[in-house]
Amino acid sequence: MRDVAIIGIGETKIGELWDMSLRELGIEAGLSAIRDAGVKGEEIEKIYIGNMSAGRLINQEHIAPMIADYAGLDDVPSVRIESGGASGGMALTEGYMSVASGIHDIVVVGGAEKMTDVGDQEAKKILSATADWEWESVFGATFDSLYAMMARYHMLTHGTSKEQLASVSVKNHAHGALNPNAQFQREVPMKFVMGAPIVSDPLSMFDCAPLSDGAAAVVLCPAGKAESYMGEPVKILGTGMGADHMAVHDRRELDAMKATRQAGTKAFSLAGLKPKDMDFAEVHDNYTISEIMAIEDLGFFPKGEGGPATERGDTSLNEKVSINTSGGLKAKGQPVGAVGLNQAVEAVIQLRGDAGKRQVDDAEYGLIHNMGGTGASAVVHILGRWN
Amino acid sequence: MRDVAIIGIGETKIGELWDMSLRELGIEAGLSAIRDAGVKGEEIEKIYIGNMSAGRLINQEHIAPMIADYAGLDDVPSVRIESGGASGGMALTEGYMSVASGIHDIVVVGGAEKMTDVGDQEAKKILSATADWEWESVFGATFDSLYAMMARYHMLTHGTSKEQLASVSVKNHAHGALNPNAQFQREVPMKFVMGAPIVSDPLSMFDCAPLSDGAAAVVLCPAGKAESYMGEPVKILGTGMGADHMAVHDRRELDAMKATRQAGTKAFSLAGLKPKDMDFAEVHDNYTISEIMAIEDLGFFPKGEGGPATERGDTSLNEKVSINTSGGLKAKGQPVGAVGLNQAVEAVIQLRGDAGKRQVDDAEYGLIHNMGGTGASAVVHILGRWN
Repeated sequence: MRDVAIIGIGETKIGELWDMSLRELGIEAGLSAIRDAGVKGEEIEKIYIGNMSAGRLINQEHIAPMIADYAGLDDVPSVRIESGGASGGMALTEGYMSVASGIHDIVVVGGAEKMTDVGDQEAKKILSATADWEWESVFGATFDSLYAMMARYHMLTHGTSKEQLASVSVKNHAHGALNPNAQFQREVPMKFVMGAPIVSDPLSMFDCAPLSDGAAAVVLCPAGKAESYMGEPVKILGTGMGADHMAVHDRRELDAMKATRQAGTKAFSLAGLKPKDMDFAEVHDNYTISEIMAIEDLGFFPKGEGGPATERGDTSLNEKVSINTSGGLKAKGQPVGAVGLNQAVEAVIQLRGDAGKRQVDDAEYGLIHNMGGTGASAVVHILGRWN
Repeated sequence: MRDVAIIGIGETKIGELWDMSLRELGIEAGLSAIRDAGVKGEEIEKIYIGNMSAGRLINQEHIAPMIADYAGLDDVPSVRIESGGASGGMALTEGYMSVASGIHDIVVVGGAEKMTDVGDQEAKKILSATADWEWESVFGATFDSLYAMMARYHMLTHGTSKEQLASVSVKNHAHGALNPNAQFQREVPMKFVMGAPIVSDPLSMFDCAPLSDGAAAVVLCPAGKAESYMGEPVKILGTGMGADHMAVHDRRELDAMKATRQAGTKAFSLAGLKPKDMDFAEVHDNYTISEIMAIEDLGFFPKGEGGPATERGDTSLNEKVSINTSGGLKAKGQPVGAVGLNQAVEAVIQLRGDAGKRQVDDAEYGLIHNMGGTGASAVVHILGRWN
């Protein structure tokens, strides 16, 4: 197995991008990454594209060759990877394996989602198709309500408070205010978050990430060749996938994500690193409760300590561990199938030292955590500074 | 790179399976393959599932962990691979790479599609979403009509006749009559095919494959370990992917599939074999014209000779090269995202010598060819007998 580097990154602004189609989003991100890396089109051996549900959102399946074609790369084989919200991260894993194994040298991994053409209610229904439709969604269990149950159980079991959930949102909006690509770029005070309308008790509007349009991409190559390209390289040190029961009612734990724990354990083991070595992490905060569970399940804090730690400010920029410096799904936005790549782009920006006002001091190691459905799949990557 | 073997196969009967859901189809095929291989659940390191459009067909995305969970494999990471009709073959490529590279030892690759719950017209519309929706389908260019244009051009350029197209259908129905898993198991005489109602001129009903329910799966392992398992192994000798413009109107050729040619060339090169070495091939005959183009583009016959060769009987069972001994998509059926795995299952059956009345004599090498959309993606594998 060869070491693998990310040598180029690109992403679109995230938001309600009504003037851009999925293919336009895809190529904007992809071509930015290719330009950043300084690779030629004919060097690209394969394209992986993460996407949750273009079939339902824009009537288009088979989007990988469509985006490749539109980017002028119609000779390059491509394939779409889907694992709900973890589609982007899973695509990164497939791309990583194809380079680590020696099969390919230059691989582009992108993620793209166009959510806002169908309206909020329809988009939420489509998102619910990544839970178990036959045993959950069809009975009216929305994504919001399934995560609300986890939040309620976490509160009951560990004393997590609504203020602690809210502090995730306040922090991520504060970080998002420093990110020019974020969908929401302003701070939201605690009193606004606490006073927001309830979506599914105990989760209110500011506990839920938006559904967004956007795309992101990275270019991978063997670490041994990374310095011959233009973009400043970053190392991929470890990757891990995890799995769990599809339906929440089949899980053994309601206050933790087994898939996240499995994925994190494997990635740390492969990287030979520990949670305390991480300077920052991008975790899958589709809901505030998700971030609290993730920072516990990834080993940054003991189970039940995620809420108090966030409330104390331990996870704010340049505190104990900087969590979601990009603004996270909550403020940077949630173009579902692109999220894993948006996280990778943020990690590279941090490790290159290019994050400006949201820069983590002396960032050497970072983790990215991407989750599918209500937690039936998860994937973690650990990235490291080049020198 | 390690050599890779298929050590287990499983598939459902193909057809209108109204009493089975997608997850039931998936586990029937998957568990059959696992039993055939004699591997234990805890040995399985990853699951790849090819599927075109479960989101639209059954309201369910994120189907890989769903099927894994339902099979009792909720600890095994899984991911869905989508490339339209080539989803199954692309999943096989990803699985192959993950074993060849040394990353995984035991990997299950499945394909599943549940097409018939939505009705014929809706299923056809969903299939058309693997063409270019914005530039083809939305204007009324159905799959049928796009392939009809290719057929018309092939007829004009090479003198291919309607009888030659029909002879593909007659042959594949004759083969399907020998396959107990085929959707259609009876011979169809030439006069019925020639007299069938027109779907899109020059293609009539018997030129078009059905849309079906079904699933298929294989178990992969390193060739070095294959003999320690129960199932009789078969070697994967080569794999290749190809790509083309998404929309038919952007292509340079209308009588050939560039993606197929690219994929075939790569697979033959990796295997160190030539078309004349193949004893049989399963090619993607979603339309009769597709089979004629495929046997030309894969190098079995010169361009323009596919029609006459088929009419002469060169591609019938145990003639020059046995094409679609399973019955192909036309008679075995077309569960779209499963097709590539159905082809792999047939190849293994042939190479094990287990094909009964449709057995290819002394089958040593076989090729499988799977295509996405109207040809924007294609994938080829070359398989060989163990001893």
